[in-house]
Amino acid sequence: MLKFELLKTSGHARRGQIHTAHGTVQTPMFMPVGTVGTVKAIRPDLLKSELHAQFILGNTFHLYLRPGHKQIEQLGGLHKFMNWPGPILTDSGGFQVFSLKDLRKMSEEGVTFQSPIDGSTHHLTPELSTQIQHSLDADITMCFDECTPHPATHAQAAESMRLSMRWAARSRAAFIPRPGYGQFGIQQGSLYPDLRQESTEKLLEIGFEGYAIGGLAVGETPEELHHAIPMAAQLLPADKPRYLMGVGYPSDMVKAVLAGVDMFDCVLPTRNARNGSVFTMQGALKIGNAEHKLADTPLDATCTCHTCKNYSRAYLHHLHREDEILGHMLLTHHNLHHYLTLMQTLRTAIEEDTLPQVAAHLLQTIR
Amino acid sequence: MLKFELLKTSGHARRGQIHTAHGTVQTPMFMPVGTVGTVKAIRPDLLKSELHAQFILGNTFHLYLRPGHKQIEQLGGLHKFMNWPGPILTDSGGFQVFSLKDLRKMSEEGVTFQSPIDGSTHHLTPELSTQIQHSLDADITMCFDECTPHPATHAQAAESMRLSMRWAARSRAAFIPRPGYGQFGIQQGSLYPDLRQESTEKLLEIGFEGYAIGGLAVGETPEELHHAIPMAAQLLPADKPRYLMGVGYPSDMVKAVLAGVDMFDCVLPTRNARNGSVFTMQGALKIGNAEHKLADTPLDATCTCHTCKNYSRAYLHHLHREDEILGHMLLTHHNLHHYLTLMQTLRTAIEEDTLPQVAAHLLQTIR
Repeated sequence: MLKFELLKTSGHARRGQIHTAHGTVQTPMFMPVGTVGTVKAIRPDLLKSELHAQFILGNTFHLYLRPGHKQIEQLGGLHKFMNWPGPILTDSGGFQVFSLKDLRKMSEEGVTFQSPIDGSTHHLTPELSTQIQHSLDADITMCFDECTPHPATHAQAAESMRLSMRWAARSRAAFIPRPGYGQFGIQQGSLYPDLRQESTEKLLEIGFEGYAIGGLAVGETPEELHHAIPMAAQLLPADKPRYLMGVGYPSDMVKAVLAGVDMFDCVLPTRNARNGSVFTMQGALKIGNAEHKLADTPLDATCTCHTCKNYSRAYLHHLHREDEILGHMLLTHHNLHHYLTLMQTLRTAIEEDTLPQVAAHLLQTIR
Repeated sequence: MLKFELLKTSGHARRGQIHTAHGTVQTPMFMPVGTVGTVKAIRPDLLKSELHAQFILGNTFHLYLRPGHKQIEQLGGLHKFMNWPGPILTDSGGFQVFSLKDLRKMSEEGVTFQSPIDGSTHHLTPELSTQIQHSLDADITMCFDECTPHPATHAQAAESMRLSMRWAARSRAAFIPRPGYGQFGIQQGSLYPDLRQESTEKLLEIGFEGYAIGGLAVGETPEELHHAIPMAAQLLPADKPRYLMGVGYPSDMVKAVLAGVDMFDCVLPTRNARNGSVFTMQGALKIGNAEHKLADTPLDATCTCHTCKNYSRAYLHHLHREDEILGHMLLTHHNLHHYLTLMQTLRTAIEEDTLPQVAAHLLQTIR
């Protein structure tokens, strides 16, 4: 099984490492999202050699539908298929299935849904989700759960959470342990501390190699989100990694690291890049804005990434207006660099006992 | 002015080098097309370091309309703007303007056209085309000419060619000579040897640093094309580079090298990549075809490019079906590698006096 090593703490913040079948990674960390077997618009070898990404995320739902987990298994697993030798975490597919709304029907057994690609009917269960993730060869497998919608009454949130906990037990039973591999349980309970507490107790009773905070960043106000994150994180055991799913903006991650979170994933840096939205240490900017048309300056004068070292805003503005693939490539590179470097900065700050000052400074300037 | 050095010949084929303001390049060579200031879907530093491209082409028409040549000049020229430190050849814009058909009107003076971007009216002349290319800082500037449509009667071809020759004189008069920079005249005359001869004489009278063969690969049969290329090439002077514009398939280039051509450009490797059409040493293939769905083999087992060393046809098929940017990137990389390596193979064959055998072998297998 994969192992978590807690190296140092600073307040609630933690500096650790996770030993997986595909290498050891340093936490806190951000995991770029590779939905259909590619982190969009960047070569995986450069994601490693130039951006020093450690872990990436793959989407079970998408890969199950196309090209199919059995095909990927036959071709040697997702690492080989997509040329990413490092560790991979796969989600359970639950989030995407539940977002189909009119195309899915839920029962105690699982979820029946129609493929948005060809309309075919599929039945996803905790067991199948776990098997798919095994076929993909995920270093970290996630439990199949229901991401409780927001807002939810206490009764709704309790019912949804308890279903997810029954599914967590079934997911665990279907998980095949291997050295360097692990499975994470997902805490639910909406914004209710007693439900988050109950969820955590049930997960600990089952026992996992790590624990995720689910059901956040799904429509709460920023105040609700940043009230919930520390509440949820502090319920989780100290000796296992804590993963805040689908969060978020750089400033969200800084606050969550202060609250004791170790792992993050989010589509924002890659998706926003393709929309021309850029993260910098001075905040965010839209490269399509006319002010950048003649700007012979980098996106971020403090940034050391390939894009900032070699290209002007004027050129990136031009590529964006022309919808050129290279524009998507260069902005994706920069945004991922911003996210990954931010986590390196936080790791160093924990090591050097400067986290409070470093975080306070960051939160004054970044998005 | 830029200088051409003829190093060796093999039959009509020539091994040479061109000394430009941005470095020395080896001929015969293929120039990837960077239409709007980017060779689509590849980072220019990798185009150099991984694919060893020597020279690229920029499109005057597109860059004039957006972002504008004055803007690029203000930002330090096209090399700096697009982060390509090597030499650049720009076309004259004529080909694109004439392809506007209903949106343009021609006179002795030049061409009036409406921008396909915003409908605004523009007047392109030999003088303006030359000035634009100067602003872009092109190492090689092309004369503004009319690409004679095919088919053309002798009278039509003669009239069109003579207009282009008058424009060539005006282009030359507008050209500002600088060390390492040069201007190429463009031979026209459709498929008529006497007109190609007359065109060549007029160009030689004006005097250029190199000569292009224009008006081919615009709808002739393959037999007509490969009859015309040696005819046209052999009229050109031996001591100046010969550039066959817009050609073509790999096999076309092999035949043209045998006929004494030194320089090529074409959108085929990059455009076809984005359509899923792949060039290999065994011919062409469509990566979207179902036969590749489970193929755990590279595009071309004999290819040493990044794509072939790291990715299966099955993965590339998957990316193509998902219309993923990485698919465009990896296929573009491979196709350009195929073109650029082919030219390296021909250069080596000329040096080693094995061109007839090497070319004969290539023509049996490649597309």
